[in-house]
Amino acid sequence: MAVGTELLLGQIADTNSKWLGEHLAAAGVASHFHQAVGDNHERIVLAFRTALARSDGVIVCGGLGPTHDDITREAIAEVMNVPLHRDDSAVEAMRTMFSSRGREMPQSNLRQADVPDGSAIIPQTKGTAPGLICPVGHKVIYAVPGVPYEMSDMFERGILPDLRRRMTERGETTGVIVSRVIRTWGMSESGLAETLADHIDALDALPAGPAPATIAFLASGIEGIKVRVTVRADDDESAARLLDAQETEIRRILSEAAGDVVFGIDDQAIEDAVAATVSSRGLTLGLAESLTGGLAASRLVNVPGASRWFRGSVVSYASEVKFEVLGVPEGPVVSGEAARAMADGARRVLGADVGLSITGVAGPETQDEQPPGTVFVGLARAGHDTESFSFNVPGDRERVRQYATIAALDLLRRTVGGPISG
Amino acid sequence: MAVGTELLLGQIADTNSKWLGEHLAAAGVASHFHQAVGDNHERIVLAFRTALARSDGVIVCGGLGPTHDDITREAIAEVMNVPLHRDDSAVEAMRTMFSSRGREMPQSNLRQADVPDGSAIIPQTKGTAPGLICPVGHKVIYAVPGVPYEMSDMFERGILPDLRRRMTERGETTGVIVSRVIRTWGMSESGLAETLADHIDALDALPAGPAPATIAFLASGIEGIKVRVTVRADDDESAARLLDAQETEIRRILSEAAGDVVFGIDDQAIEDAVAATVSSRGLTLGLAESLTGGLAASRLVNVPGASRWFRGSVVSYASEVKFEVLGVPEGPVVSGEAARAMADGARRVLGADVGLSITGVAGPETQDEQPPGTVFVGLARAGHDTESFSFNVPGDRERVRQYATIAALDLLRRTVGGPISG
Repeated sequence: MAVGTELLLGQIADTNSKWLGEHLAAAGVASHFHQAVGDNHERIVLAFRTALARSDGVIVCGGLGPTHDDITREAIAEVMNVPLHRDDSAVEAMRTMFSSRGREMPQSNLRQADVPDGSAIIPQTKGTAPGLICPVGHKVIYAVPGVPYEMSDMFERGILPDLRRRMTERGETTGVIVSRVIRTWGMSESGLAETLADHIDALDALPAGPAPATIAFLASGIEGIKVRVTVRADDDESAARLLDAQETEIRRILSEAAGDVVFGIDDQAIEDAVAATVSSRGLTLGLAESLTGGLAASRLVNVPGASRWFRGSVVSYASEVKFEVLGVPEGPVVSGEAARAMADGARRVLGADVGLSITGVAGPETQDEQPPGTVFVGLARAGHDTESFSFNVPGDRERVRQYATIAALDLLRRTVGGPISG
Repeated sequence: MAVGTELLLGQIADTNSKWLGEHLAAAGVASHFHQAVGDNHERIVLAFRTALARSDGVIVCGGLGPTHDDITREAIAEVMNVPLHRDDSAVEAMRTMFSSRGREMPQSNLRQADVPDGSAIIPQTKGTAPGLICPVGHKVIYAVPGVPYEMSDMFERGILPDLRRRMTERGETTGVIVSRVIRTWGMSESGLAETLADHIDALDALPAGPAPATIAFLASGIEGIKVRVTVRADDDESAARLLDAQETEIRRILSEAAGDVVFGIDDQAIEDAVAATVSSRGLTLGLAESLTGGLAASRLVNVPGASRWFRGSVVSYASEVKFEVLGVPEGPVVSGEAARAMADGARRVLGADVGLSITGVAGPETQDEQPPGTVFVGLARAGHDTESFSFNVPGDRERVRQYATIAALDLLRRTVGGPISG
């Protein structure tokens, strides 16, 4: 549960819930709901009652500050039906914190030492407000500051040990839940689902207990569709073994049905796949970009060590730059011929082993009689005829550029090398 | 309400709730709660019932995809206590969408045309799943895809008009609440707040009723600090007059205190300011990018009509490309001298009136004895000596590149021209 009107107004993003979700999952604790609520006493109390009705424990972030709109403490006291008292050790810790910074503690900070009767304190090591462990019947509220690094510190030191103790007392397995994301380009979500349907059915149909792995499809973002495999196991090592087996099987099924569609695992982006493909072969790469205006280059330089294999890009947005710098023959610049000449030009001008070019129509107008979304990609390599490829991508100007960049880099990955291994 | 187990597991961030919060606030609609829930039928139903019990309307994002874990439609039908039926117009729209991309529609997509009896459709213009407007008694559920650009499109076209109609019917709209964002670069949030403190105090101190305008500072994102002015008025026209007066006054105060720090209004980005500055003077622009790897160019080409004034960029990531293509003298490439030679080279190679260069150290290692975050910018123009500027920016590799891009483009805007008018 995140507390703060600024979250509801969209003035800041709630990054704490994402962080907590990730770390709770890694610890084998199932998260069922997130909530955000503003700085309003009645609504915070209502959010706590809702949360406690449907979950065994609630972690609340924010509203522990020293100002008048920091009211999480009071709301918890109401939910627990107890008064607040001032905790001397917390006052002392705050005084020490202030004096170590050579400052006098303002009176208003004293409020931060108010704790509901019956609750325990998670001491601060980085800020002023202590965290709270507040039992509500056999359930529990953990309250921590909204400042991300104070929150994460108290989660590790205070919340996680208490959660583990409660789970052990209840005889619940404190195993781990671990996920792995297999990233694909070139297949639709429904196409992936149909291709993997038999595998998923087989997992669900296994006798004795819950499925050993669950599979979900994520279409978020624009960089292809993700296949997420989640397993529950006693420890990280067993989980990794289960995930390895699932990954191998899913790669096999997809490869048989649709070829080399898997480009990476977890956080690996398409530029990481290109980097692995190009650098492992000892090659250097140069680009010539028209449609994408430098977007492909700006992604490649994000890969650590890119300077070892990436030479640069000629962003030839004006046609004259294509003709004069890259040596493209005068004529239509959205064509396979232009794409091939641009790729050759990139190799020559930038002194690279491999030249990749991207030209096309961002829209909204047509160009060289081609509709918006038309993309031509050129690929020049020593010992090969220079090739060109064409395809269409959907979306507005910016999206056309992003899709064209991903598709061109994927084409390079597939043509020059194989998939990178997980 | 956001639906998706990946949100609870922290695998993706819920950016939709932030976006919706911001846009609901701008429309004068109060947001009281956010929730996130996984792909679990019982828990989605419970989350809907909770949300409807404490709010008049619920916007739900996600779970409208074609796969077995997309179950928002079924959960809404249970909450409404009605069956689903297949909507022919939605089937037809999906078929058209697929065939326009030259693809056959998989059978599994048909599920996306299932709608609860009694609900209305928000047609898709970008993807496949239609949005839904589902009355529940005198309350309402709006269901839209989790893909951000489909969500935001449907919010503007379908949700906001329906919300406005409902508010008018209930006699709640007594006018409009309109905001304008004044975008600045080069001042801190506290510096802006101090500079505008007297103006804000004067607004609050006016007699008779609430302040005619409220001012807030938004530090979200990395593109400078935003000053948001919000006014309440009888109609859009009166609101615009109030906002114009506030904008004029705020620009005057900031200009007197800190110079040309305002670069745009609302969605105007730094590249729009550059486009206005360069094109209004009939100039053309060419870049030479090392540190930023094409990022500056990729932002400039997003401005409609960029081909009229933007020539291109030489992304000279390898030092040899700087020496051989741009004619930079051999030696340190992170220096004022190199930046000036790069800017001259960009003008010459790309045939542009103005040459802008960016070189520097992204980190984590030092380069040419300069620490990470060091940036040199060169600016070459006919009739002027070529200049260089240097500064330091904070952050990791990606953030250093983004700050360097914004700072270099802002420098070009200030040096070549004045601010763009609101």
